[in-house]
Amino acid sequence: MLIHAGFDIAYECPQPTPMLLMLSPHASRMGHLVAPQQIYFTPPVPQRSYHDSFGNFCTRIVAPAGHFSMTSRLTLRDDGRPDVIEPAAFQHPVENLPDEMLLYLLGSRYCDTDKMMATAWSTFGHLPAGWSLVQAICDFTHNHIAFGYDHASATRSASEAFAERRGVCRDYAHLAVTLCRCLNIPARYCTGWLGDIDVPPPYGPMDFAAWFEVWLGDRWYTFDARNNTPRVGRILMARGRDATDVALATTFGPCTMTGFSVITEQVQAA
Amino acid sequence: MLIHAGFDIAYECPQPTPMLLMLSPHASRMGHLVAPQQIYFTPPVPQRSYHDSFGNFCTRIVAPAGHFSMTSRLTLRDDGRPDVIEPAAFQHPVENLPDEMLLYLLGSRYCDTDKMMATAWSTFGHLPAGWSLVQAICDFTHNHIAFGYDHASATRSASEAFAERRGVCRDYAHLAVTLCRCLNIPARYCTGWLGDIDVPPPYGPMDFAAWFEVWLGDRWYTFDARNNTPRVGRILMARGRDATDVALATTFGPCTMTGFSVITEQVQAA
Amino acid sequence: MLIHAGFDIAYECPQPTPMLLMLSPHASRMGHLVAPQQIYFTPPVPQRSYHDSFGNFCTRIVAPAGHFSMTSRLTLRDDGRPDVIEPAAFQHPVENLPDEMLLYLLGSRYCDTDKMMATAWSTFGHLPAGWSLVQAICDFTHNHIAFGYDHASATRSASEAFAERRGVCRDYAHLAVTLCRCLNIPARYCTGWLGDIDVPPPYGPMDFAAWFEVWLGDRWYTFDARNNTPRVGRILMARGRDATDVALATTFGPCTMTGFSVITEQVQAA
Amino acid sequence: MLIHAGFDIAYECPQPTPMLLMLSPHASRMGHLVAPQQIYFTPPVPQRSYHDSFGNFCTRIVAPAGHFSMTSRLTLRDDGRPDVIEPAAFQHPVENLPDEMLLYLLGSRYCDTDKMMATAWSTFGHLPAGWSLVQAICDFTHNHIAFGYDHASATRSASEAFAERRGVCRDYAHLAVTLCRCLNIPARYCTGWLGDIDVPPPYGPMDFAAWFEVWLGDRWYTFDARNNTPRVGRILMARGRDATDVALATTFGPCTMTGFSVITEQVQAA
Repeated sequence: MLIHAGFDIAYECPQPTPMLLMLSPHASRMGHLVAPQQIYFTPPVPQRSYHDSFGNFCTRIVAPAGHFSMTSRLTLRDDGRPDVIEPAAFQHPVENLPDEMLLYLLGSRYCDTDKMMATAWSTFGHLPAGWSLVQAICDFTHNHIAFGYDHASATRSASEAFAERRGVCRDYAHLAVTLCRCLNIPARYCTGWLGDIDVPPPYGPMDFAAWFEVWLGDRWYTFDARNNTPRVGRILMARGRDATDVALATTFGPCTMTGFSVITEQVQAA
Repeated sequence: MLIHAGFDIAYECPQPTPMLLMLSPHASRMGHLVAPQQIYFTPPVPQRSYHDSFGNFCTRIVAPAGHFSMTSRLTLRDDGRPDVIEPAAFQHPVENLPDEMLLYLLGSRYCDTDKMMATAWSTFGHLPAGWSLVQAICDFTHNHIAFGYDHASATRSASEAFAERRGVCRDYAHLAVTLCRCLNIPARYCTGWLGDIDVPPPYGPMDFAAWFEVWLGDRWYTFDARNNTPRVGRILMARGRDATDVALATTFGPCTMTGFSVITEQVQAA
Repeated sequence: MLIHAGFDIAYECPQPTPMLLMLSPHASRMGHLVAPQQIYFTPPVPQRSYHDSFGNFCTRIVAPAGHFSMTSRLTLRDDGRPDVIEPAAFQHPVENLPDEMLLYLLGSRYCDTDKMMATAWSTFGHLPAGWSLVQAICDFTHNHIAFGYDHASATRSASEAFAERRGVCRDYAHLAVTLCRCLNIPARYCTGWLGDIDVPPPYGPMDFAAWFEVWLGDRWYTFDARNNTPRVGRILMARGRDATDVALATTFGPCTMTGFSVITEQVQAA
Repeated sequence: MLIHAGFDIAYECPQPTPMLLMLSPHASRMGHLVAPQQIYFTPPVPQRSYHDSFGNFCTRIVAPAGHFSMTSRLTLRDDGRPDVIEPAAFQHPVENLPDEMLLYLLGSRYCDTDKMMATAWSTFGHLPAGWSLVQAICDFTHNHIAFGYDHASATRSASEAFAERRGVCRDYAHLAVTLCRCLNIPARYCTGWLGDIDVPPPYGPMDFAAWFEVWLGDRWYTFDARNNTPRVGRILMARGRDATDVALATTFGPCTMTGFSVITEQVQAA
């Protein structure tokens, strides 16, 4: 199965503005590209790339003053298999987790575990650990938050989303990640392309999707509190502690985003 | 039945400091005093009193620089009857509420209805209106928040208490009041003396109690999400939109409270 | 001088929805109406009016399910005089304020004086009391917040506006009111019609204006931290502790505002 | 010069509780130990150590149920030189920063750069980049926040400390780090032993100290917005994005800290 994906993003910058972009498939997904990804910048600018500590493929540019756009199209092979379900996956006691997992139990900008600890334990503390606990957290989050693009707020934390019960996919991911961490399940935030099946017109896929991963047994598993059903065709772009670490574009200076569209579609067999 | 009540409060003020005190029984309770209340100020200061728009008996003083204390003892008659339970009390549709009740549907400093609206409706929106709805809100609040004096925060709003699940009696009252208002039930915050049956040593009754009232049918009824059981011997001091309006002492300048104790006890029959 | 003012507001309600409207000139301004105000509701609905505790003229209706609109045009006489400047106006010590002013020193939903007290005193505590202090607060607020309709947030408090430095006219008013109260100057929030001179296209006057009043000497004076210059032709609609008390429409149920425009213009002499 | 340092910490745990400890000198300081550090646990427990991604020496234990204490004493050589002052240190444009520095420009749990961006630029945007800019941020922060142990709040973010103007040393560090990041200066949070010269009795050094580092030119420099003067004898324990990453003890379960004291003193020459 082939997936066609891409984006068209435009900015207006009052002055030359350094940018950190995470607009490429994650290192773990690069090998599935049918051809190397090109990001076309208009006007053209030099670019430099590196992998950050989360394994994200990062591109650094300086956007020129004025109108600036970024476009890319790419085609990837996908095994067509939905997110793995593994109810037997085991939740290790904290003391048995690998050292490098402890980072994913701590709080972060939008995952304010310090404020949600009591809620997490009183809501889920009686449940058996493991896969079903993560699923319970997803079910709860999925039902707790009402989706709406007019509910987007760039500064909303998990505890605020919990109280306000409104949000977009990043809020679902932040709340579920936060609850998992409170319950000692390592969790990290993910962003990428995902055909969004249930977005009503006139919205269309207005943003990259957000989901998350948890460490159970000896590997990371994908969960998605927003859609809360196994999906095919996720193209991971970036992972991190929360949305802070995986912003599609971090701009070091004031810019206005003037255009944004995302493309994801399955390529039909001939 | 007679109740003996009082307080000893001490301040240290760096300079003469105006204060607004609500340390007297509410106007509706004045008639039950066995003798007129005296508040003894050390050193003595002039005092001036008035009733505010909520019917609270307010005392104005200027505390002198240095150590300053306020002491009072009073004895009231009480009918010994517990809080009224009236399951048949009717919740009017908003359009039928008296005009002066609408104020008690609006948000206030610690009752951030704007943030709790979705939570209120999704948690309670399916329940029948009226007394049982208020009771459901009390049950929820009582179980949702863990009590602890070390959880006190003077700036915590209802939505924060909801997320953090910790607090003292004012947080219980703020959260319950907020949920009632979201659900179109007029609610106001109350403070006063109440023998606190379940405070473990070494705490004792370290603060005045907080409860709330709702308008159902054609009168106000008392509810108490902290204790969540009918109680006898409440001595109402002040009512308002939230704790802001009924602070025992609002100090207009920096002062340090250096002593605080509250007395409430039933007087034994001879 | 005559001022022509009005509004066109539309809602979509999923079900019959009680509303509390403050869409009329304030009681103190009623006498300047050339003809009694009519609010036209489409479809027509019964209406009922009263004055609340702040002297605001309030209208109660039940909006029907479906599309619903409210329209009004009115003409008022105005003395054409700009906001009074009275540098000699005296700031009373708290102990000399009339009792009914103390309410306007307390915190409220969007005026979180508890969080802003230290900022207020360290920023302004060295300045002489009185008119020039209020003006200093206006100058500060005017320069501190960057105006932008895309910075509007219905839940933003004064302390958040202070940190974020972004907002619309209500944020300016909330921050200035909060600082005044912290410094023991009674302050109340105002909303009404005001020809907005500096709103760039395509915005136009997209909202009613917000300003505030402070008690100095023995009367209330108008200040406007957003425009920060004396203006003519303010048509006061409502006053209160903050925006909570004077919302143009408080809807007791979920509704969507689908249209909103405000008209204010000086009528040209023949 | 020799510094003697240590701590005595006690917990009461209702059940066996995994803990992540950062109670050792940082890897960069280990070589200065006169003898290897021992942490004595009572009762004794197995321990396991590793270095995290920030180079912090981390110890993992499971505290037993009941009373549990941790004690350590250590002696380090110190060159006795105060924090380096290098006014000529150069602030690189973002595009020239090493890739691994970009992480330290992003927001984190207590460093909410998203909320402080406008404040940072309007307060400091007119100043020349480099060392003097960081010093200006330290001066501002030092003067802006009033120190007080009774102002400690474990959930306070930089934007809240900015509005409230109160805090302890971690709040100074969080605010200064946040402002630096907003202004494109990589900054990281530090904690460790530091003889605290100006803590009045009865407090004494009740906590480990917090300071921060910025990347200027081609190295990290130490700044301290709390003390705001060069100090000798800092013993770095841990670095990270903010206090989340360097908590002296992260407990994975509910525990109560029942004792805490820190020792730092210069060893007198014979």
